Amino acid sequence: MTTIAQYLLSRLHDLGVDHIFGVPGDYVLRFFGEISKSPIRHIGTTREDTAAFAADGYARSKGAGALVVTYGVGALNVVNAVAGAYAESSPVIVISGAPGVREQREDPLIHHRFGPFSFQREIFERITCSAVALDDPLIAFRQIDRTLSTMREACKPVYIELPRDIVTRKGYPIPSGQDAPLQSDPETLEEAVAETQALLGDAASPVVIAGVEVHRQGQQDALINFISHSHLPVAATLTGKSVFAERHPAYLGIYEGAMSSEYARYMVEQSDLLLMLGVTLNDVDLGIYTARLDPRRMVRAAQGEVVIRHHRYPHIRLADFLAALTARISPRVALPDIPALPEAEGFPASSRPMTVERLMQRLNTALTPDMVVVSDTGDCLFAAIELRVHEKAEFLASAFYTTMGFAVPAALGAQIARPDRRALILVGDGAFQMTGCELSTFSRLGLAPIVVVFNNKGYSTERFILDGPFNDIASWRYYRIGELFGPLAGYRAATEEEFETALLSALKQTDQPSVIEVILARDDASPAMRRLAEHLRAKL
Amino acid sequence: MTTIAQYLLSRLHDLGVDHIFGVPGDYVLRFFGEISKSPIRHIGTTREDTAAFAADGYARSKGAGALVVTYGVGALNVVNAVAGAYAESSPVIVISGAPGVREQREDPLIHHRFGPFSFQREIFERITCSAVALDDPLIAFRQIDRTLSTMREACKPVYIELPRDIVTRKGYPIPSGQDAPLQSDPETLEEAVAETQALLGDAASPVVIAGVEVHRQGQQDALINFISHSHLPVAATLTGKSVFAERHPAYLGIYEGAMSSEYARYMVEQSDLLLMLGVTLNDVDLGIYTARLDPRRMVRAAQGEVVIRHHRYPHIRLADFLAALTARISPRVALPDIPALPEAEGFPASSRPMTVERLMQRLNTALTPDMVVVSDTGDCLFAAIELRVHEKAEFLASAFYTTMGFAVPAALGAQIARPDRRALILVGDGAFQMTGCELSTFSRLGLAPIVVVFNNKGYSTERFILDGPFNDIASWRYYRIGELFGPLAGYRAATEEEFETALLSALKQTDQPSVIEVILARDDASPAMRRLAEHLRAKL
Repeated sequence: MTTIAQYLLSRLHDLGVDHIFGVPGDYVLRFFGEISKSPIRHIGTTREDTAAFAADGYARSKGAGALVVTYGVGALNVVNAVAGAYAESSPVIVISGAPGVREQREDPLIHHRFGPFSFQREIFERITCSAVALDDPLIAFRQIDRTLSTMREACKPVYIELPRDIVTRKGYPIPSGQDAPLQSDPETLEEAVAETQALLGDAASPVVIAGVEVHRQGQQDALINFISHSHLPVAATLTGKSVFAERHPAYLGIYEGAMSSEYARYMVEQSDLLLMLGVTLNDVDLGIYTARLDPRRMVRAAQGEVVIRHHRYPHIRLADFLAALTARISPRVALPDIPALPEAEGFPASSRPMTVERLMQRLNTALTPDMVVVSDTGDCLFAAIELRVHEKAEFLASAFYTTMGFAVPAALGAQIARPDRRALILVGDGAFQMTGCELSTFSRLGLAPIVVVFNNKGYSTERFILDGPFNDIASWRYYRIGELFGPLAGYRAATEEEFETALLSALKQTDQPSVIEVILARDDASPAMRRLAEHLRAKL
Repeated sequence: MTTIAQYLLSRLHDLGVDHIFGVPGDYVLRFFGEISKSPIRHIGTTREDTAAFAADGYARSKGAGALVVTYGVGALNVVNAVAGAYAESSPVIVISGAPGVREQREDPLIHHRFGPFSFQREIFERITCSAVALDDPLIAFRQIDRTLSTMREACKPVYIELPRDIVTRKGYPIPSGQDAPLQSDPETLEEAVAETQALLGDAASPVVIAGVEVHRQGQQDALINFISHSHLPVAATLTGKSVFAERHPAYLGIYEGAMSSEYARYMVEQSDLLLMLGVTLNDVDLGIYTARLDPRRMVRAAQGEVVIRHHRYPHIRLADFLAALTARISPRVALPDIPALPEAEGFPASSRPMTVERLMQRLNTALTPDMVVVSDTGDCLFAAIELRVHEKAEFLASAFYTTMGFAVPAALGAQIARPDRRALILVGDGAFQMTGCELSTFSRLGLAPIVVVFNNKGYSTERFILDGPFNDIASWRYYRIGELFGPLAGYRAATEEEFETALLSALKQTDQPSVIEVILARDDASPAMRRLAEHLRAKL
């Protein structure tokens, strides 16, 4: 006999979910008991929202991530993190305990309740692509199958509610009427590829822009292959950062309107044909609408269609378009001269105060192929435009949803998903105060991320829009956090020399987390932030 | 000319809201600018959910509390705390920024967006008694008036969404068609009071049980007055703890089914007439349904009605019922002998390890009339059943919704609302890991709560239901948190002598927070928890 909990856990395991993040509570405790008996390992976090961010980081690294929380007080704590996973297309499975079906029947006033029992599911319907309550053992297996299949198809979070008296009930297999995955329409595909090929042939300075869907649909290798065939130069969007190997000779950098480097901006905006692969036209990637892109010079494959100038070819999968185009493309003669990696000259200059710009340049040379860079929201994200991660490495951020507090817990998930990699975490002081204590879980598990805290004593991005005392935050000694829990090594770096010493020591420290608190001037900012500032002010 | 922001802020100020908690973000930044120019002071917190808990603590102490957050990433972070305020009937005003009305019109992909723009309001409709978006300047003043009036009437949270291009728009006064407040029906009231009076006259051992509505409807003084006239003994529910002066000679203690003290349980369950004032019949107050109460011996005034045995008198306000009954009642001859306050004999016994039971007994003698006790969820809450706060002091907890992480931030709100009081915070180690860093804001403001951290290395309540490694948490040195931010004094107390020293020192320390980490055995528990344990296990 297979119980509903066993079936759910085995289906998760099939998806590559070997770890599940979360916090127990009485309505979900029986399911925790079942997890203990399964091959899936529970990773306890300090809070529920950090469990959800960890599951998001895990999902981006492994194709699916899961979290488990109790009813009400647990589930309602993850709404923001799950909405973020939705906005960012990360396949996260939320499992929430609930009062038993029989308990619910008499409409009792039981603890953790905040309204009709259906309200929690109704809230999650608005932030997931499928939300089900497993309140009928006869159909529970089928509900699990469909929900997980919807998740894979849409690459978005799902919600599964598990009343506590259902957990160990026997379930019933239902013949799998597997829904066929979406296919491209062959004739539409043929026509779109032919038109694109002709346009590329006529263009004098075509450029590829690669977006986040390339990652979500597993097309990174296909993209590298396409570029090897075509010899086209490639820029990436910020939300798609690292979808194309950033040290590849064809890589131009991040294009993001006014936030781009001058070179990337010139190359993209002078181009007479932009081939946009997996690019979503959101405000972040358009540099808060400072991008100057002409739809008449665009071919865009994304969201299941190809759009050329003002006409649309529906029902085309990105993978099929990329494969067909690669098969047809003729290589261009030569790549343009790509400027060298931005590096920090003469670093460290002994008593020179640290700046964001030099910090990122120094990190560029410190990056190794086994590092995953996880950035929080704020100037660390804009500054990361200048960072070039290695091939096969990854850059993770909440770059479109831009929630603060993402980086530390998401890095936990990313590291557990891929134990061969080491996390470099970039986080502002404000964001660190939100979820930085999740480092305690790294310490507990013997993981060794390097955390760079940008301490400019407040919400720096907002200062550039409208300043006031509301942008100042409490002063913390971030580098002393190892006194609260550990083992954890802490460093404080006000000058380049101090940073150099701290960084070299942290790189050697591979059995515990290292926190490097970088002291920055209140008005220091990355070049990208400075370029963006006036546009943000105008939007206020 | 009055702008919409000015009107909203002045209406809040009229309600006694002198402080507003929250975290800025670009969609709400213009409103933050307006707050700076108003008499209301912004209190920045480390996270948004702690701002909501603080507003809840403020509201319970002052009649209304407010928080301000940005769209998406801010608002969706407060869903749990606001649902808690709803479940606990705390009048909290959530103000969320949003993209401008004109920005929203073209349905753009802008940062912090997670779905249709209406979804955020739809989520808040499920956890507030009124949710409005101020997207039309012509009616905004009226929307503000109605929403705040609904909040006062229902004593529940409300949600106000403020698109950023509306903030400084001129608003239009609308003649106030003030909805008349609900009144009791005089004839129904007369009949209900007469029947109650007759039943009380015939009863041999009547007992009053006082519940949370007595607090929410401001009837504490009326209750004291009623008891002075009637000489009836009074028990309180856990969610209503401190609604009746706990050191009053008529006070029996908390009645909560199997969790009650033996004496309180005996007195309530042997009574031949229970007069339940403002009591909600939820599972916590019924001791997870271990209460033995006979409806045939009950008169219950709550939720706008009076229920006697099996018949109901609708449309009766608690205040009117209590006033009418007080006017009619004849005093009983004598009160029963009330047992003495549970105190710790021979405390401190030098090297005796600390236990929850002796800890609470010691705190009973340390409590002063200027203290507000704020308890988190877990065994500290059950243990607090034995605590007796002074008259006019208060006990705050998430006693029905039972969310963890409530105490530290709620105490922040309570202290700011009533600067003449000092907070004593009781918090488990698990809950402290969730929101304990909000102490940083106390330090920043020079507030001096005493925080007792119950360190038993995990989720103790759950261990009593089903134990497993999932109930263990990371080991923190809570007493060292002053290394991360401060000023803050920390103490570690494994023995009674160490606790005594720490407590005396903390009581003297009135310009900074004190954290006393109490080391407890893994299997130690309050007497109430032990009495409840088997019932919780049966429910799993």
